[in-house]
Amino acid sequence: MRKSILVFALLLFSAVGVMAQTPERPPMKPEMTEIWDPEVPVVTPGETPVDAPSDAIVLFDGTDLSREWTSQDGGKPQWIVEDGAVTVKRGTGVIKTKRVFEDFQLHIEWRSPSEVVGESQGRGNSGVFLQERYEVQVLDNYNNRTYRNGQAGSLYKQYAPQVNACKAPGEWQTYDIIYTAPRFNDDGTYFTPPVVTVLHNGVLVQNNVKLRGPTEYIGIPEYTVTEHGPGSIMLQDHGNPVSFRNIWIREL
Amino acid sequence: MRKSILVFALLLFSAVGVMAQTPERPPMKPEMTEIWDPEVPVVTPGETPVDAPSDAIVLFDGTDLSREWTSQDGGKPQWIVEDGAVTVKRGTGVIKTKRVFEDFQLHIEWRSPSEVVGESQGRGNSGVFLQERYEVQVLDNYNNRTYRNGQAGSLYKQYAPQVNACKAPGEWQTYDIIYTAPRFNDDGTYFTPPVVTVLHNGVLVQNNVKLRGPTEYIGIPEYTVTEHGPGSIMLQDHGNPVSFRNIWIREL
Amino acid sequence: MRKSILVFALLLFSAVGVMAQTPERPPMKPEMTEIWDPEVPVVTPGETPVDAPSDAIVLFDGTDLSREWTSQDGGKPQWIVEDGAVTVKRGTGVIKTKRVFEDFQLHIEWRSPSEVVGESQGRGNSGVFLQERYEVQVLDNYNNRTYRNGQAGSLYKQYAPQVNACKAPGEWQTYDIIYTAPRFNDDGTYFTPPVVTVLHNGVLVQNNVKLRGPTEYIGIPEYTVTEHGPGSIMLQDHGNPVSFRNIWIREL
Amino acid sequence: MRKSILVFALLLFSAVGVMAQTPERPPMKPEMTEIWDPEVPVVTPGETPVDAPSDAIVLFDGTDLSREWTSQDGGKPQWIVEDGAVTVKRGTGVIKTKRVFEDFQLHIEWRSPSEVVGESQGRGNSGVFLQERYEVQVLDNYNNRTYRNGQAGSLYKQYAPQVNACKAPGEWQTYDIIYTAPRFNDDGTYFTPPVVTVLHNGVLVQNNVKLRGPTEYIGIPEYTVTEHGPGSIMLQDHGNPVSFRNIWIREL
Repeated sequence: MRKSILVFALLLFSAVGVMAQTPERPPMKPEMTEIWDPEVPVVTPGETPVDAPSDAIVLFDGTDLSREWTSQDGGKPQWIVEDGAVTVKRGTGVIKTKRVFEDFQLHIEWRSPSEVVGESQGRGNSGVFLQERYEVQVLDNYNNRTYRNGQAGSLYKQYAPQVNACKAPGEWQTYDIIYTAPRFNDDGTYFTPPVVTVLHNGVLVQNNVKLRGPTEYIGIPEYTVTEHGPGSIMLQDHGNPVSFRNIWIREL
Repeated sequence: MRKSILVFALLLFSAVGVMAQTPERPPMKPEMTEIWDPEVPVVTPGETPVDAPSDAIVLFDGTDLSREWTSQDGGKPQWIVEDGAVTVKRGTGVIKTKRVFEDFQLHIEWRSPSEVVGESQGRGNSGVFLQERYEVQVLDNYNNRTYRNGQAGSLYKQYAPQVNACKAPGEWQTYDIIYTAPRFNDDGTYFTPPVVTVLHNGVLVQNNVKLRGPTEYIGIPEYTVTEHGPGSIMLQDHGNPVSFRNIWIREL
Repeated sequence: MRKSILVFALLLFSAVGVMAQTPERPPMKPEMTEIWDPEVPVVTPGETPVDAPSDAIVLFDGTDLSREWTSQDGGKPQWIVEDGAVTVKRGTGVIKTKRVFEDFQLHIEWRSPSEVVGESQGRGNSGVFLQERYEVQVLDNYNNRTYRNGQAGSLYKQYAPQVNACKAPGEWQTYDIIYTAPRFNDDGTYFTPPVVTVLHNGVLVQNNVKLRGPTEYIGIPEYTVTEHGPGSIMLQDHGNPVSFRNIWIREL
Repeated sequence: MRKSILVFALLLFSAVGVMAQTPERPPMKPEMTEIWDPEVPVVTPGETPVDAPSDAIVLFDGTDLSREWTSQDGGKPQWIVEDGAVTVKRGTGVIKTKRVFEDFQLHIEWRSPSEVVGESQGRGNSGVFLQERYEVQVLDNYNNRTYRNGQAGSLYKQYAPQVNACKAPGEWQTYDIIYTAPRFNDDGTYFTPPVVTVLHNGVLVQNNVKLRGPTEYIGIPEYTVTEHGPGSIMLQDHGNPVSFRNIWIREL
């Protein structure tokens, strides 16, 4: 091979090399992706996962209801405290927390009456309202068919639960609710909607669902969105003697 | 007023009326927002929230490990089963489930050795890998500082836990993990990334975080995203005798 | 100071030092965050932003309509092609593309009749249906009030446009639409919903809105979600002689 | 059959009927899903989509730069205004708007020098910084390879553009940028990250990408997130005589 051809070949090779090659990225070190600060705050968990951890506000421990709760009008709550549980007193209306909340993790236990009365929405009906507006349905759906977006574990009339994880009437059941409050645009619409995850008796029934607006018994939730601030946890008096216990909340 | 002017005025009024008025929306009925079908499937929950519900696959019940698990190379897993728990056998490598999963809810309990040895990442280190790629860190962080994005409950080197909810060495701890697998674009990048929620001992430590890519000890996760299908649950052998028990999973 | 105290003090200092100090992260190099591969594909843009770029499929260039479009039943489209535009022929029904699409960027120009007839939804009404199901409303809303979620630039009955950017009747107007098709769960519900961004005459009117379901004239979109594959672009015959021109699409 | 048995049978049939049947939903009317208020605000669009609509703030119309812009230190901007364009004056530093913005739609036109000098990041390099922190790269990538996450239309070192839609050096190019500012948690981290859509010469190059943090030349963006308020639009002096014109912004 003549030298000039060799040189040309080398140049060609070199040019192709330049076009084909992309710079090699210098190696990183493990420490480059470690973040040390700020230190993660320590929380002492409860003895079991249903027990209140050290950073929780205990909203009801089975004894004094009026420390953390009021009736709808701000008066003393009229529901019945007995045997470590509080039970709806028909006709006395909702009870709600004195404190108001934005983002939180809520643990609450409930029990529908062991004596079965009524059917569909008429059996063991109550509700946990987040920020006083967004209802996680409480209902005795054990062998009790109702509309899917209105049964236990539903975000009432917005999202049916993934599964029906109800226990039998008279048995205690748990809700673990993770809630992110909405943020608002200047015009009062949602910038980000309320977002909810629910475990019912340890079974995932809602996974990060985005609410369309406040809970509406009649009509379309989107139509009634208006800006609001922090709100109470509110429990519904739907006329059935549903009981609650072991209620705690962690502000996020 | 002449009649023609009167007529004009009336027309004008009427036109203004038409422009100003917006039609009233006809009232809805409650039944219009009820959805009855399909019926929500029934699941029998466990006795307590940590017990496997009826639709769970029990991956480890304290007895036979080799029914659901293999070693890295598909052989019989070498970890030690004793007293209803399985413990890392140093140097034998990971164990992983024979079954592969996409979206799921996973319950797993773990315990770091009661005898404290080592510090930072060297103490009670193991990990739960989702789809064999995405690690929820297991570490004894009880009075043991390490980098925040590498401690117990972290999505390793991607998301620090919101809080450090560790129990003391030697105590059993729970992880409840809700996982949505990534979906992919045609070019192998994420259409939607993996999404993870974690409760540690009942305390929320990760809320719907979106992973940036596979877990990387060194380097940047985004760089190593490649399309993959369903994957095993994999437990890490990091050389420390960490134990596991009561492992169940629900496919979502 | 006795030696033992000195040693203790040193140990204490050292312990505090260990606790207080967090390791310094080693410095990175610029090249560590450069990604070279794969090379980004080259597209030759149009002369102006409304002209089709090199990777676009031209769906209508003002001449032959039947190359890319059919009538509802798959027959030859009956709309009128004249002067570089295609105009709704009342009563002949929709026209739709032969090709079907998933994710795309669509440019389309439309003109409502210069002679104003009718009011509210009766004036210059047509529509661009994405995947044959999701309507971006076409309407002459120039000095023509209608319901906000049904006006030009709305995702019909789901999202009102941010602003009314209509030009006068008889003037050509542009829609630039960025569309991400839904992905589905196994049960036929959305895993991710359709997502739409719309610029009307260069003005943003929809920013990444998430559709709730197929467009419904009557009723609630969520109720009618069912799994579907790629779909045509479809233009509506609403009985008004609306014209279209310069239609191109880029598959994403 | 005795009457009592007949009655029982009828009751049983009726009960079974009740259980099996799901109620029919009452029909809705079209008006139930019309929303009339509030009226959508009217905007007069520009003559073409690149012309400023009536609700835009014109940041540069080709004449007076100092009305809306300052230098980095708040002084008079030193860049060169000529022939309806403003050109980087090497070494004088950035220019930035006096006004500060949160969510917006931005139109800006740019031109790299017709005389090609340099390669990779050294050719026609400038940048449009959103809220002074988040860079949409400006670069002459016409037949000029560089790292994909640093080329024209990239969110610098975070997202490569979907395609390279560059025009030749010396030609005017357009960016249409839709930007949603981050919202913050109390601890200064993102509640929602900055979100960006970019059309380059009318071609979609970024679709609703979520930034990981401020633009970083060296290192990892997540590490430098800190809470901030509204910010200026800022144009970079990277030492190359890049020109800009027809800059307008609409606050969203």
